[in-house]
Amino acid sequence: MLRRIAKKIRKDFPRNTSFQRHMKEFELLKIAEELFSEEKIEVPAGKHDSALLRYGSDFLVFTCDTVNEISDFPKFMKPEEYGKMIVAVTLSDLAGSGAKPMVFLNSISIKEPDKELFRKIMLGIKEWAKRFDVRVAGGDIDFSPIITISGFAVGVTKKVLTRKGAKPGDKVFITGPLGKAQLCLEMLEKGCNREELPYAENLYTPIPRISEGIRIADFANSITDISDSLAISAHLMANASRVKIVFEKEKICLDHLSRFVNEEKAIELFLYGGGDYELLFTAQDSEFGMEIGRVERGIGVYLDEKRVLFKGYSHF
Amino acid sequence: MLRRIAKKIRKDFPRNTSFQRHMKEFELLKIAEELFSEEKIEVPAGKHDSALLRYGSDFLVFTCDTVNEISDFPKFMKPEEYGKMIVAVTLSDLAGSGAKPMVFLNSISIKEPDKELFRKIMLGIKEWAKRFDVRVAGGDIDFSPIITISGFAVGVTKKVLTRKGAKPGDKVFITGPLGKAQLCLEMLEKGCNREELPYAENLYTPIPRISEGIRIADFANSITDISDSLAISAHLMANASRVKIVFEKEKICLDHLSRFVNEEKAIELFLYGGGDYELLFTAQDSEFGMEIGRVERGIGVYLDEKRVLFKGYSHF
Repeated sequence: MLRRIAKKIRKDFPRNTSFQRHMKEFELLKIAEELFSEEKIEVPAGKHDSALLRYGSDFLVFTCDTVNEISDFPKFMKPEEYGKMIVAVTLSDLAGSGAKPMVFLNSISIKEPDKELFRKIMLGIKEWAKRFDVRVAGGDIDFSPIITISGFAVGVTKKVLTRKGAKPGDKVFITGPLGKAQLCLEMLEKGCNREELPYAENLYTPIPRISEGIRIADFANSITDISDSLAISAHLMANASRVKIVFEKEKICLDHLSRFVNEEKAIELFLYGGGDYELLFTAQDSEFGMEIGRVERGIGVYLDEKRVLFKGYSHF
Repeated sequence: MLRRIAKKIRKDFPRNTSFQRHMKEFELLKIAEELFSEEKIEVPAGKHDSALLRYGSDFLVFTCDTVNEISDFPKFMKPEEYGKMIVAVTLSDLAGSGAKPMVFLNSISIKEPDKELFRKIMLGIKEWAKRFDVRVAGGDIDFSPIITISGFAVGVTKKVLTRKGAKPGDKVFITGPLGKAQLCLEMLEKGCNREELPYAENLYTPIPRISEGIRIADFANSITDISDSLAISAHLMANASRVKIVFEKEKICLDHLSRFVNEEKAIELFLYGGGDYELLFTAQDSEFGMEIGRVERGIGVYLDEKRVLFKGYSHF
């Protein structure tokens, strides 16, 4: 019975791939930001991927994320990958602060006490936590007809580096190619099998850029992770830093996409696709990462002369 | 449509008030405990209400909890109270380690971007966070047909005090009377209105015993919070400490219950009712709290000569 209802919900619950969803999410975030604007914390809720609080000579970095089977799990995803996914999306927020992860906790709701399902999800969490060197400090189990997993992570860093701090004259970099996860997601929607996807790993088992974030923290002026889309991350960075971000088309490599789609679509996937979990950062210069543009005085986000919209597709 | 489905789910999803549910939850916890037994952490997952990790000269204390509208929200509960509830249940785990709360984060899933609902839940979180002096450091928003809120809290303490440590010769204490929330829940199930409940506050807006926990940490040998039931907390404490816990009927005050139910039922509510969020602790002696029994050599939990079962009713 429950399974039938869950299936029905999956069918009827609107897929959250639209511009509208993000706008609405940001409207809610704004309410929270206003309500909690006076908390005594160095970088509070809503100002960055994660919150930073001074602790002795360090800063503790806090973040949380939730995934559920309706909004966030692509077709053909395996239970182990649910576990890897929640670790990846949560740690990605720490990477987006250049922080070293310390502990991870998860709160999981499953339909019924299905030991095999639970063990597989936990094995995924264990494998990804080990890979990114974070202790699993505990968790909580609840029951719900919708599989829902929340991840919480605490990291540590020596300095405050956020999306605020991009400077005119900086160059703009990303840690890796974008659009792969979204390309796969759209291929799934068109009826492809998992085996046919060119970048299944990017979609099902994304990699949080932890070591890259720590390295970037040494020299960058601003940083953020790219979970929803490059466009959304760049807009948040440009707003927070009060600068204009210009992507330069001739610097952007789209080879990984243009083998599968035309140029226009490749640009769209690159700018507006979600789920890659790379980092966006700005610095005077960098020997590391892919240069894709520059920071100027002004406001907004551009691809050469053309405005880049504040939109994105969530991972699902 | 969604609302109808959600209503249907609420109707069909089994109410989690049974012994079985707890046994199944503990079976799953055992799987997690085995998988994560080698994590490098002073008090790891599954060994206590929260995990403790040494950090400089202090210990950081981590915990997370989830509530959802199907399993955890009693009838007539208001959205502000959803917010207070998640703060209370999460901080209660810190109280159960004698820790001082530092930050709170929440990850919330709601059906649709209902700004009024969202604001009310956040206002509840804000009010309860302020009351218990914890910073709200951030959060995450997701969409799901079942309202689900996960709370995550980090606290700090100077010493490791857990449910392991009760010593033969200790006396057993609780911070306040038990069974009030369960009494109200059962009255609701019998058709009472909210206004008719004698202890509505205990059910809808429980108080985490933060200041009591910090005070108890100065002198107690063991501590834990009571979320599911006194029986479950005492069993976990007795097992972890390898002792026998004996409640003494003549020391237990049941006046707050016996005005409404007979003595047998009052004892049942006291031992097996959930949702009061008091603390259970053992110490050589205490000027503080209500003495209800003693610790002996042996195993198990007893009410005088009679065995107390490992069972409880969750908050809902």
